Amino acid sequence: MTDTSPGWLAPDTLEQARAQMPILYVDAVPVRVDDRGEVTAVGLLLRIGPDGTVSRAVVSGRVLHHERVRDALLRHLEKDLGPMAFPKIPASPQPFTIAEYFPTQGITPYHDPRQHAVSLAYAVPVTGEAAPRQDALDFVWFTPQEAASDAVQRETTGGHGLLIKQALAHLGCSF
Amino acid sequence: MTDTSPGWLAPDTLEQARAQMPILYVDAVPVRVDDRGEVTAVGLLLRIGPDGTVSRAVVSGRVLHHERVRDALLRHLEKDLGPMAFPKIPASPQPFTIAEYFPTQGITPYHDPRQHAVSLAYAVPVTGEAAPRQDALDFVWFTPQEAASDAVQRETTGGHGLLIKQALAHLGCSF
Amino acid sequence: MTDTSPGWLAPDTLEQARAQMPILYVDAVPVRVDDRGEVTAVGLLLRIGPDGTVSRAVVSGRVLHHERVRDALLRHLEKDLGPMAFPKIPASPQPFTIAEYFPTQGITPYHDPRQHAVSLAYAVPVTGEAAPRQDALDFVWFTPQEAASDAVQRETTGGHGLLIKQALAHLGCSF
Amino acid sequence: MTDTSPGWLAPDTLEQARAQMPILYVDAVPVRVDDRGEVTAVGLLLRIGPDGTVSRAVVSGRVLHHERVRDALLRHLEKDLGPMAFPKIPASPQPFTIAEYFPTQGITPYHDPRQHAVSLAYAVPVTGEAAPRQDALDFVWFTPQEAASDAVQRETTGGHGLLIKQALAHLGCSF
Repeated sequence: MTDTSPGWLAPDTLEQARAQMPILYVDAVPVRVDDRGEVTAVGLLLRIGPDGTVSRAVVSGRVLHHERVRDALLRHLEKDLGPMAFPKIPASPQPFTIAEYFPTQGITPYHDPRQHAVSLAYAVPVTGEAAPRQDALDFVWFTPQEAASDAVQRETTGGHGLLIKQALAHLGCSF
Repeated sequence: MTDTSPGWLAPDTLEQARAQMPILYVDAVPVRVDDRGEVTAVGLLLRIGPDGTVSRAVVSGRVLHHERVRDALLRHLEKDLGPMAFPKIPASPQPFTIAEYFPTQGITPYHDPRQHAVSLAYAVPVTGEAAPRQDALDFVWFTPQEAASDAVQRETTGGHGLLIKQALAHLGCSF
Repeated sequence: MTDTSPGWLAPDTLEQARAQMPILYVDAVPVRVDDRGEVTAVGLLLRIGPDGTVSRAVVSGRVLHHERVRDALLRHLEKDLGPMAFPKIPASPQPFTIAEYFPTQGITPYHDPRQHAVSLAYAVPVTGEAAPRQDALDFVWFTPQEAASDAVQRETTGGHGLLIKQALAHLGCSF
Repeated sequence: MTDTSPGWLAPDTLEQARAQMPILYVDAVPVRVDDRGEVTAVGLLLRIGPDGTVSRAVVSGRVLHHERVRDALLRHLEKDLGPMAFPKIPASPQPFTIAEYFPTQGITPYHDPRQHAVSLAYAVPVTGEAAPRQDALDFVWFTPQEAASDAVQRETTGGHGLLIKQALAHLGCSF
């Protein structure tokens, strides 16, 4: 059965588009900040992939047709962290980096076997309580040092480990 | 006849994709800088549209499947400014802004009647001589103040006037 | 009488330092944002100068010895907007620009007759109610378009008009 | 004997200022880029400190009274890398981060026992040949991975190791 809601692609069309053009994504790195805006923790999802492998990941997803980038950020954060997370979308549309996920390994530090995706990456303060939903097994807060540690970095895939370090660097965290 | 080179879409498929997902673009604002990196001029194309209207515009174009963002910038700059322009692509992938072109007017300051395009915007120093090509009638250097003036801003369409002012603001130019 | 609190300079020493080195400042542009982080208004102080002239200005002030930049932002925002403004200091230390105020006119777009000051400029969402204090006569919210209008720009001095436009450009506002 | 050239402080006055206000610095991370602007190497100085300890460091120095930030960058790069390095100062004044060096350890990741310095940090492409001068023993190009490695990071002091990783993160390098 075909999904006919606006902005969504029928699976066939999505497959066809993925083979022919870069797909626009957003990546959101959830963070806790103190009263002065300083980052005290980084939140990561624990995901189970189609092949059963478990990995830690930032919030990530596609931007739909006729959807604002900030609405896509809100939608994916609510989908993954639940309705009580209260994310504060940054006022500036300037992302801290652009992550280019290639279906071929080694062209960039980012990799997505399904598609060529280009993702606008933002750090997003979360002020409420996050409760993992959908395909996430868990959501865990790490100190910046833990998030950049070999132990956590090894549990990421597709370049999310680098993306976390890029967010920490942008946020002025020591790691 | 259908273009079958990799990365290019058949016209039908491009039309279909445009109706169903945001298309990834790059916008490049060509600038002249002095020995200390300070911007002295902004370069704008004079374009003639399908309906015969003439407008001033920055360099702009689609990112292809399996193409790096920096390669797309180089390709579109060479296509529009010729092979002797010698653009210096910025080292950092962080764009100065994201321009969201909507097919519906008024949702964002940017507008593209053909499609929903999301563009990564960069200021690109050009050190050689630009010679307009393709559908450009001319390429003219303006002082930052001229580029932000009402006279030049009125000659832009689709939000390129704002994009020029955003570039000038990012570059520390007075306007 | 000499102010002996740590971080403060005796008036003589401050005068001497001002004549001999750049003084570090922070500039904060107060903004209102909606639920998706989009800026809806820009707040400006109405100040009366030592010579009796009235002007609109952003929040601005010196960073003290052994004071963090984010603490200086909080201190000056509270001093100018009162204790109920609840400013949200950005998580990232990256300013949207650096404003170089020279005592000589025309070297940069910014000017401060008292000193050479270099200011780190941030846009700061304010969620509470601002009440002007100290030497401010009033604090008024403007739409982004009003803040960039000739009428308001003419009421600014020393380059604050440009700084407001740079903030709006960084925040993706139309102006 | 007292240095009386404009912009320079007599040693006594500099000591006095250092004890009473933050000193404005610039940090420049020299990089090699390829034709598409992609970073291929990071250059580090090998310095000998007053106590005889040897460390790797980025180019760093004070901004003088009435000196533009971009002129300070050029001056310190030429002083440390020689006249044939041909650094390309970025067009935008927006630094990739602000490094707050405190005389007290542990307040921020950066430390300078002599003073409270706040540094505007830029990545600067160098197109010519660098020859270390002044108090530098050597200048060595590293791959991004080497520059972020434990071996090189251990040879840095005062937070320069973190600053190098922040530059790499901003530049989209894998590390």
